Amino acid sequence: MSKPVMLSGPDFCPHSLNKYASLMATGNGYLGCRASHEEAYTHQTRGMYLAGLYHRSGKGEINEIVNLPDVIGVDILLNGALFSLLSGTLESWRRELDFASGELTRSIIWRAPDGARFAIECRRFASAEQLPLLAMSLSITPLGSDATVTLSTGIDATVTNHGRQHLDETQVRVFGQHLLQGIYTTQDGQSHVAVSTHCSVNRDAQTCFTAKERQLMQHTHVQVKAGECLTLEKLTWVDWTDASDVSLETLGQQGIHHLNACVSQGYDALLAQSGANWHRWWQHCRVEVDSLNADDQRALDFALYHLRMMTPAHDERCSIGAKGMTGEGYKGHVFWDTEVFLLPFHLFTYPDIARNLLRYRWHNLAGAQEKARKNGWQGALFPWESARSGDEETPEFAAINIRTGFRQKVASALAEHHLVADIAWAVVMYWNATGDEHFMSREGLTLLLETARFWMSRTTDVKGRLEIHDVIGPDEYTEHVNNNAFTNYMAYYNVAQALHFARRYGCEDAAFIQQAEHFLQSLWRPELQEDGILPQDDTFLSKPAIDLTAYKAKAGKQTILLDYSRAEVNEMQILKQADVVMLTYMLPELFTAKVCLSNLQFYEARTIHDSSLSKAIHGIVAARCGNPEQSYQFWYEGAQIDLGDDPHSCDDGIHAAATGAIWLGVIQGFAGLSVRNGELHLAPALPKGWKTLTFPLHWQGSEMLISLSQHHATIRSSRPVTLWLNTKPIVIDGEYTTALSGFFFPDNGTATTPGGCE
Amino acid sequence: MSKPVMLSGPDFCPHSLNKYASLMATGNGYLGCRASHEEAYTHQTRGMYLAGLYHRSGKGEINEIVNLPDVIGVDILLNGALFSLLSGTLESWRRELDFASGELTRSIIWRAPDGARFAIECRRFASAEQLPLLAMSLSITPLGSDATVTLSTGIDATVTNHGRQHLDETQVRVFGQHLLQGIYTTQDGQSHVAVSTHCSVNRDAQTCFTAKERQLMQHTHVQVKAGECLTLEKLTWVDWTDASDVSLETLGQQGIHHLNACVSQGYDALLAQSGANWHRWWQHCRVEVDSLNADDQRALDFALYHLRMMTPAHDERCSIGAKGMTGEGYKGHVFWDTEVFLLPFHLFTYPDIARNLLRYRWHNLAGAQEKARKNGWQGALFPWESARSGDEETPEFAAINIRTGFRQKVASALAEHHLVADIAWAVVMYWNATGDEHFMSREGLTLLLETARFWMSRTTDVKGRLEIHDVIGPDEYTEHVNNNAFTNYMAYYNVAQALHFARRYGCEDAAFIQQAEHFLQSLWRPELQEDGILPQDDTFLSKPAIDLTAYKAKAGKQTILLDYSRAEVNEMQILKQADVVMLTYMLPELFTAKVCLSNLQFYEARTIHDSSLSKAIHGIVAARCGNPEQSYQFWYEGAQIDLGDDPHSCDDGIHAAATGAIWLGVIQGFAGLSVRNGELHLAPALPKGWKTLTFPLHWQGSEMLISLSQHHATIRSSRPVTLWLNTKPIVIDGEYTTALSGFFFPDNGTATTPGGCE
Repeated sequence: MSKPVMLSGPDFCPHSLNKYASLMATGNGYLGCRASHEEAYTHQTRGMYLAGLYHRSGKGEINEIVNLPDVIGVDILLNGALFSLLSGTLESWRRELDFASGELTRSIIWRAPDGARFAIECRRFASAEQLPLLAMSLSITPLGSDATVTLSTGIDATVTNHGRQHLDETQVRVFGQHLLQGIYTTQDGQSHVAVSTHCSVNRDAQTCFTAKERQLMQHTHVQVKAGECLTLEKLTWVDWTDASDVSLETLGQQGIHHLNACVSQGYDALLAQSGANWHRWWQHCRVEVDSLNADDQRALDFALYHLRMMTPAHDERCSIGAKGMTGEGYKGHVFWDTEVFLLPFHLFTYPDIARNLLRYRWHNLAGAQEKARKNGWQGALFPWESARSGDEETPEFAAINIRTGFRQKVASALAEHHLVADIAWAVVMYWNATGDEHFMSREGLTLLLETARFWMSRTTDVKGRLEIHDVIGPDEYTEHVNNNAFTNYMAYYNVAQALHFARRYGCEDAAFIQQAEHFLQSLWRPELQEDGILPQDDTFLSKPAIDLTAYKAKAGKQTILLDYSRAEVNEMQILKQADVVMLTYMLPELFTAKVCLSNLQFYEARTIHDSSLSKAIHGIVAARCGNPEQSYQFWYEGAQIDLGDDPHSCDDGIHAAATGAIWLGVIQGFAGLSVRNGELHLAPALPKGWKTLTFPLHWQGSEMLISLSQHHATIRSSRPVTLWLNTKPIVIDGEYTTALSGFFFPDNGTATTPGGCE
Repeated sequence: MSKPVMLSGPDFCPHSLNKYASLMATGNGYLGCRASHEEAYTHQTRGMYLAGLYHRSGKGEINEIVNLPDVIGVDILLNGALFSLLSGTLESWRRELDFASGELTRSIIWRAPDGARFAIECRRFASAEQLPLLAMSLSITPLGSDATVTLSTGIDATVTNHGRQHLDETQVRVFGQHLLQGIYTTQDGQSHVAVSTHCSVNRDAQTCFTAKERQLMQHTHVQVKAGECLTLEKLTWVDWTDASDVSLETLGQQGIHHLNACVSQGYDALLAQSGANWHRWWQHCRVEVDSLNADDQRALDFALYHLRMMTPAHDERCSIGAKGMTGEGYKGHVFWDTEVFLLPFHLFTYPDIARNLLRYRWHNLAGAQEKARKNGWQGALFPWESARSGDEETPEFAAINIRTGFRQKVASALAEHHLVADIAWAVVMYWNATGDEHFMSREGLTLLLETARFWMSRTTDVKGRLEIHDVIGPDEYTEHVNNNAFTNYMAYYNVAQALHFARRYGCEDAAFIQQAEHFLQSLWRPELQEDGILPQDDTFLSKPAIDLTAYKAKAGKQTILLDYSRAEVNEMQILKQADVVMLTYMLPELFTAKVCLSNLQFYEARTIHDSSLSKAIHGIVAARCGNPEQSYQFWYEGAQIDLGDDPHSCDDGIHAAATGAIWLGVIQGFAGLSVRNGELHLAPALPKGWKTLTFPLHWQGSEMLISLSQHHATIRSSRPVTLWLNTKPIVIDGEYTTALSGFFFPDNGTATTPGGCE
């Protein structure tokens, strides 16, 4: 394995501080810390978050991921003047996030307004080895003449979520000359956070402490000779609990105990341990590409880095927020993005993590059942937005219309029900990839049955035909429609799989089985038209189309809503993302290549790609239709959602699903991985700029390494495994190499109407 | 009257932003707005407050004055780069607060890092004529070349009180192209604030609005030609209510109605009206001095300006916070500072305002009675710290000891009871100066009786002698002592005055009269020693003294507490401020000049002046003892508490009482005003650097103008008035001029033991 790349930040620019604070965030699935600079800037949003720590801050607010007291900030006084890159002259600058080790570094040489020059180096990482540990190092070397340096840092609890405060300050303490601790309690009294931090410098210094206005600070004053390096090492341990049987005293003492053990090792040793952990992880899952465009490898390393740091692998009571652990966007809530866009990476690399993510839903079944019941349905209607408890967290009303003063009801929680089937789909994906009977016969089956029960109660009987009315598909520009193709097919799949596994595990609920059989016999699924187009819903094809060129050029910006109201958009053939394309991606065994292509062409022309979930899926379907160059174009544009030139592309956090889609696009697009009727298929077709593609893959207990070039495929497996390579079944036992010739779509014969999937 | 002076800010310096944000605050007694710059700086604390609007933000917190959503901030983008004085070059700078009109102005010429030059002028005032109105103007002139200018401003509700959020965002609206409104509700649901703001520029512009993350913003984009002036005019109307019968809709509509009326007039016309109001006010109360040191007039104008803007003359349910309306220090709470340090200015200029301040206490009698009852006493024990309701607002515990984790109980609310007598003292002062029978026979008498009842229940019978045990006098470095001289004398005065007025108004409560007579006969008041020293309390004189020179050199910084614990300080002759000196100031008729002088000399040597209340009172007593130069020195140093060189002297707000003391020191020190046995005395003795001193004075319905020089006094009165000039009674009818020769202490004979005061 070659070394994962560095992500370099651009030259210092006040405009893009928050974009890079998201992109270069450090974390480990337990905590995430935005890559804010040590010195403060007025529009720089600091952020540190703990997976699963949500709280509601006031009336009219909703549960959101809590922005913790800041430990990154350091007021740096050089010869009495506050250091800021807005003043003086920046003589050199380098800022890099090392994906290989998880370390963020910054090296600058700065000339103060009074002419004094300083070399300043900042380093930081969140430990992959000890999750509550965040380590920093800040070195200052006066160049040319002696200097006085004052460093003020500690624990700053004036931080809010954009003005919303979640935490009461319960206790602040100083122990000895270096150790500060603050204990904070969410305002509902339910959760406690202990932030313990150890700050020391490498030479004689005057230090004092202040505790005022929610800021617990250590102030260190040092005379530094020219050429000497003053280094502040700051190690922070962040513990939290929402258990009622843990005392604050115990919480605080544990933090100090662990922190002291870290202090005895020091930054470099701790980094080496964490880096070794990252190294093992990369060895296990890195995707390597030899591309004409170096951005491609960077995008993959970026994606995998964030896929690791966003995922609370340590705690199955948490899942992945829509912005990962990098910002407050979407309040840190969990969407269907997790199961459809993020879970596959874990499933094919560390399947236990995929299981944890499914168990998160299983833990929260009670809330989903309650939501279904409240709305007059049965089974489990999972919340559209989920946090710690599994209760529905979607705001009841959208942002206020500042013109009318009215807040529109948010429709997603009311009608975007495909999420239920998406979770069932992920359960079956997990089963296919692992054959985990233990999970499947218990949590998996329960999830399938409860989701199936929801769909069976969700139908409307129209003269003996079961229809699903008033839903929203993934395309959120089309609301409250009947017989949305994506929803109906996925619901059918959900119930069919539930019935299949109910029988497999000897479920004796005759009423369920009877009801499921009736559902599968009677559910209406939109049919292909003569032109091969699958109608998105009952009315879509009868709506007028308009020229979307201008809006597509600004994909992701939702500029259409500047010209048309949502109600107007709803009455035209305007897609945020294309449901039918998504459906052909989700259930590939149902559709021929020709059908996929027809629908891709038809719907893509009507799609603005205003959702960050859109392009990558179009790219995968394009690849499956034999068009790797179109696929690459979609994939590349999808990778630019966060990494592109827009200085505000991800101020409030990266797009987690788009990150997952970078991996999906390569593995499911260019390597052509798909799972059809439980079988693993590969149909490789690298884009022309790609020389090789190598990636590991876990499938039913086998660890494979797949190496692809334009004309050859080599697959190594840790034990015998069967897969279909370009529609042909092969058994890999050890290493298998073959020439690739042409493109093979693993088609399902010539059917023009989709087949079943039982 | 000459024009009140300007307060000039120093050159731009990030270190002193918050000091000058306090000193140069604008306000009108209804609202106060810190003089933060329009552009943001990281350590700049924005603040806007409404008199009486307090709220408690979370567990362990206390009621504090609410920091409102910000309307001052403007993001100024010049050719796409955010304007900040930390970057580029400041070619010229002038910042002034015009005490005459209340307008704060800033004029700068700035060269951007790219070389483009701009003239920027900012203006701002809080209307003295329409209290909810805050007006701003921001002008930008590109010098040399055309420029694009983008201004983003509106209502920013991310503001907190150092991380504590008090307000829920209830409604945000935009009306037309210029009007933005946010309605906010305190998190307890009790109070509502409507902030309405109108933003417009003087030329064609593209504008749009955003409402996100508690920020309601207008963004204005303009191309400005070189030499042309772009002016943003922003008028803001801030309404609030805690009445349950006012709907939010009505509140919002009223704000818009009033604001629109202001918009039709524009900044300059509104400023002219407000300025005219200020002009009338200054004519009524300005103190003019012709001094060798121009700082002296500046200190007086500064003091009077803040005395006006800190005082909620419009609402007798509010009083004056310890930091005025300029910051969050002491949480905006009301202390004895109001009655003793601030009320006299109002009493002798606008006595109706003094009456309102006393009615504030009268409205809150129920809370004071409840506090007394809870502690086992009778009558009214007013809260040491008071906010809207009159309940005790002193934090139960002091700031945490970060070394031990313990929070010490705050003793003031438990034992600093002299406040009760201070309020009674102010009631009698009000009576003396106004003869207001209506007030005195009702609210005044009630206050006197209830405060007296407290003292009568507060005593301990020691073998027939009534003593007052376990109190804290004004000197907070000496806690929990018995028979504190200040307290016992003031309590005696309180009961004596209550008895006097009870009889005057025919009070038929025989039990009260009998109890009061017994109290006056039996209360022990510390007696003068043979050396003329009045013991501060039972034990003070037996404690050891130490050399305080080093601590006195850093008066106000409480550096003694770095070397000694509070418990240790308590056991030494170390005074924060001198109780006995304060007593001789409060009840001058009780003490001879000789006694005053002896005690001033004795106690001042033991006083660090760590309280901002200390020096000015010492200065007045020094003046009364015939030492105007020592008096001037104390007075000058007192004026430096806020205005001096310390760049952080008043970051969290000016010292309101010290401001009041600037007026007190001149009028009661140099002009020698005192009220003795209900009579008005003057004993002028100007410091040698002062040529003349002229001030208006209200006394029992007469409007006087008193002009003093080193050797002459001229007094004009609107109607006949009797006063004592240098111990001689005179009747002023029209104008009276006399030569002054020597110093006359209006002494009470040769008594060495203080006399009575009935």
